[in-house]
Amino acid sequence: MTYRATTDDFQFLFDHIIGYSDIAETELFAEAAGDMATAVLTEAGKMCEDKLAPSHRDGDLTPAVLENGVVRTSPGFADSYAAIAEGGWIGMAADPEYGGMGLPLTLQTAVNDMMSAANLSLQLCPLMTQGQIEALEHHATDELKALYLPKLISGEWAGTMNLTEAQAGSDVGALSSKASDNGDGTYAVSGQKIFISWGDNDITENVCHLVLARLPDGAAGTKGISLFLVPKFIPDADGNPGEKNDLRVVSLEHKMGLHGSPTAVMSFEGAKGWMIGEPHKGMAAMFTMMNNARLGVGVQGLGAGEGAYQKALEYALERKQGRTPLGEDGTGMIVDFADVRRMLTQMRCELFAARAMALSLSKAIDMATATGDESWKARAALLTPIVKAYGTETGILVSHLGVQVHGGMGFIEETGAAQYCRDVRVTAIYEGTNGIQAMDLVGRKMMDGGDAAFRLLEEIEAQAESARAMFPNMSEAVWSAAEDLRETVEWMVEQGDMQDRFAGAVPFLMGFARVLGAHMHLKAAIAEGGKGPRTELARFHINRLLPEHTAQFAQARAGAAGLYALSPEDLAS
Amino acid sequence: MTYRATTDDFQFLFDHIIGYSDIAETELFAEAAGDMATAVLTEAGKMCEDKLAPSHRDGDLTPAVLENGVVRTSPGFADSYAAIAEGGWIGMAADPEYGGMGLPLTLQTAVNDMMSAANLSLQLCPLMTQGQIEALEHHATDELKALYLPKLISGEWAGTMNLTEAQAGSDVGALSSKASDNGDGTYAVSGQKIFISWGDNDITENVCHLVLARLPDGAAGTKGISLFLVPKFIPDADGNPGEKNDLRVVSLEHKMGLHGSPTAVMSFEGAKGWMIGEPHKGMAAMFTMMNNARLGVGVQGLGAGEGAYQKALEYALERKQGRTPLGEDGTGMIVDFADVRRMLTQMRCELFAARAMALSLSKAIDMATATGDESWKARAALLTPIVKAYGTETGILVSHLGVQVHGGMGFIEETGAAQYCRDVRVTAIYEGTNGIQAMDLVGRKMMDGGDAAFRLLEEIEAQAESARAMFPNMSEAVWSAAEDLRETVEWMVEQGDMQDRFAGAVPFLMGFARVLGAHMHLKAAIAEGGKGPRTELARFHINRLLPEHTAQFAQARAGAAGLYALSPEDLAS
Repeated sequence: MTYRATTDDFQFLFDHIIGYSDIAETELFAEAAGDMATAVLTEAGKMCEDKLAPSHRDGDLTPAVLENGVVRTSPGFADSYAAIAEGGWIGMAADPEYGGMGLPLTLQTAVNDMMSAANLSLQLCPLMTQGQIEALEHHATDELKALYLPKLISGEWAGTMNLTEAQAGSDVGALSSKASDNGDGTYAVSGQKIFISWGDNDITENVCHLVLARLPDGAAGTKGISLFLVPKFIPDADGNPGEKNDLRVVSLEHKMGLHGSPTAVMSFEGAKGWMIGEPHKGMAAMFTMMNNARLGVGVQGLGAGEGAYQKALEYALERKQGRTPLGEDGTGMIVDFADVRRMLTQMRCELFAARAMALSLSKAIDMATATGDESWKARAALLTPIVKAYGTETGILVSHLGVQVHGGMGFIEETGAAQYCRDVRVTAIYEGTNGIQAMDLVGRKMMDGGDAAFRLLEEIEAQAESARAMFPNMSEAVWSAAEDLRETVEWMVEQGDMQDRFAGAVPFLMGFARVLGAHMHLKAAIAEGGKGPRTELARFHINRLLPEHTAQFAQARAGAAGLYALSPEDLAS
Repeated sequence: MTYRATTDDFQFLFDHIIGYSDIAETELFAEAAGDMATAVLTEAGKMCEDKLAPSHRDGDLTPAVLENGVVRTSPGFADSYAAIAEGGWIGMAADPEYGGMGLPLTLQTAVNDMMSAANLSLQLCPLMTQGQIEALEHHATDELKALYLPKLISGEWAGTMNLTEAQAGSDVGALSSKASDNGDGTYAVSGQKIFISWGDNDITENVCHLVLARLPDGAAGTKGISLFLVPKFIPDADGNPGEKNDLRVVSLEHKMGLHGSPTAVMSFEGAKGWMIGEPHKGMAAMFTMMNNARLGVGVQGLGAGEGAYQKALEYALERKQGRTPLGEDGTGMIVDFADVRRMLTQMRCELFAARAMALSLSKAIDMATATGDESWKARAALLTPIVKAYGTETGILVSHLGVQVHGGMGFIEETGAAQYCRDVRVTAIYEGTNGIQAMDLVGRKMMDGGDAAFRLLEEIEAQAESARAMFPNMSEAVWSAAEDLRETVEWMVEQGDMQDRFAGAVPFLMGFARVLGAHMHLKAAIAEGGKGPRTELARFHINRLLPEHTAQFAQARAGAAGLYALSPEDLAS
């Protein structure tokens, strides 16, 4: 199992696709200039290759287990985690006042991508902590910040998010966990939460839970929910882990994949907690971090896909089978068969597109943070569900193709190809299913009447126009697909009945990603001067994959009536 | 875990889509009239519900293991297998002279579909035996037939196929197993074979291996390979299992799924074997059964998909989450959310299309067998790779969507949704990867200059024409897609360089299946008189899924140059 860090890809994307220099030109990120960014990518890449990848298989083969109420993590995970923590990678975008590096999220995205490729199960732990750091930075009192942030940023303590309950999954507002005021500034939190990623571990000295619960006077639904910080060990006067809190891990789930990540059922039994943010406004506080968590999960998807791609390519370069069409001009290995090339090239194209989108979103967030500019905020809001859903669908597709490239060996667990498929599958589900992402895109994110989408389309079309001399066919294809997208956005915002939007939301999102991906690839071909491997990838993407947008937008505009014409009984017969 | 037999679907397909009565009108199948077919489907369906489904999960949770050189199968499998054997379902299409029922393959396909849905791991055992029965019927001496067929048909003995070696997967001709003449009518077979499904078991009293090996004077490549029947226990004078043969199970694979099916590495160490067919013509004998085995695997895919679909629908009808858009008019369950409806409806549409294709192929084989008509043979040859690849891709897609419908619960193994995904994955790989199916379709199956495809297209277009009054839009969509397919077939047969065909072979096959699926759905809508659930499914398929053919055929015609413009080094960087 080898993983090779994709630092070159990031460098190209920074320099030629997303315009990283804009970020470094802001006052906030002045210290994160280009050479600094390169150094960060190189160092993080080396850490992923040397320290994370080696325990990737161990996480699958020796899942985390619950023993006497305590989670024992997979072999090697403690050392791998130590490398992440000691490198400062958990808090790389966090506030320097509390020990963070204050780097742009764009760099964190690149590092999270590499960590996900090297060891997805383990990377989920710091990803959760990063979300908690962000929530505390925005919503905690100064006292709590001073107590918790340094420990979370250093990785001495880990963070979790406790939203879901058995009866309240996508419908968070249905939760029944309760909190009552202890009268001393703390609250007693009670309830059972499920699907808590890294709900416990034996690596960090404390585990800090962010828990959604309802105060006695909290209204029903999402508007009556508050957010609490509930540590496993209550910090003592010196800020060290003290008394054990009244919470426990009830059980760990047996999952299709991601075995190295302990997914816990958590029970809070009058556990001591501290409120984060205002009473009844827990969902708002949660959403602050949820957006970046969605970016983070999209990046998990594409990162895992990168791991699967590298594994498949390695196999295709080593496996000899029959006579390849290139004869003596070829490698003699299966990489030279046309259908294997087709699969590998599609994998590479999708990963590039997903990575370009994730970094574009990260830049938008960084620019919004640094400048407060509303248009960057709107861009970030628009791209978030696309990056989450397309990034994770890319991970699923690429790892599926990775198994196929391996042939029979792909189905054998020792090969390692199947693990990527099994691990990445959940990314399309957690942090809001991809269906919910798509509903967000056609609902909340179109409340501006499509304005943010239209502004992005203007950029896409302007770029396509500017490339007409160099690439007449590709430019026309991208321009025309953008027009089709424009019409579909117009159709969406015109629908008064949200069900008509929702009925086509997922195909719409995927079609949007197809057009955006084509734009990114065209940009890469232009940057390359119209000749070279990136230009060939652009041709593949635009000539072979982009045409899918037609069917995607047809389905996007098909409306809800046809779905409800069938009764549940009809579906069952 | 409940499975409900899809007998109604088969009845509709028999009566209105494939025209089952044509089969019963032939002399060969005169006894298999409509009411007999209905009785068979009903009885087999009940067996699948009552006897196969109960051990489905056990196969996953308690995989087959190798203990002291003997395979111990999963709990419950022996009883489930006994129900299959005692019902006569293994030999239902086999020669009555040796105890078979002599029923049409079309009925066997329906029963195999149900058995796959109920318990895929177990069903693979009789599927292998069915292949062996067919090979022996066509190529064995009368003496061997009399000895082996009654035992295989009754299920007392099981059959396996031993093709693959570590260095010879898709390239069977590279195998190195050897056979030498013992001078007494038997041969000594030596070599190591991998990926042997049901390579051993503790259920049947004997296991009969069909083994490809090379005689000393066999040429290199596929033309020097012979086929041998090598039993685990050599039949004694009374035809009962006698002396243990010189073969053994070396190990069992740890697989992504299909845990209940023991996948063995087999070692033949001068084992006694009997030649089947002519020396050096083992591949031809193997191909006789391989075609039907490909149909069988396509049916495995769609059957497993049916199991996944039923599980997802059941969950969607039971799971309450938030406020569904239908309010008091709806069920209140997640089945009423537009995106869940979209997923379930697509699952149902794909399964219907795949089932219709598998049964059409089966009918073509039955008609060819019964009448010797060349056009039925050509139809069967054309449809075989399509049914194998589209059936298995459907199983993969449907089980993937099944997990998504379950949300977080889909990733938890106890739910059972993930098992379908893991189990079905291999069907796109074994019995010739789907890439190889697609190469067969654009290669060997187009050696008639596209004739068989054009004749099918004439039927599709004629039907679309005839439905213009009833369904103007759907008819036009199907007609126009058929024209696009026609142009793509023409493009394929015009390509002198096979790499240009192979580069787009998989998208071509999938596009072909899209058009054929739309044709089947349109036929169903016509049969329903233009109003009802099957008409709504047709609308969904034709309006929302069929448009994908445009992109599929664009990719089909994109040629190989773009793939080879990238070097392996380009892919790696």
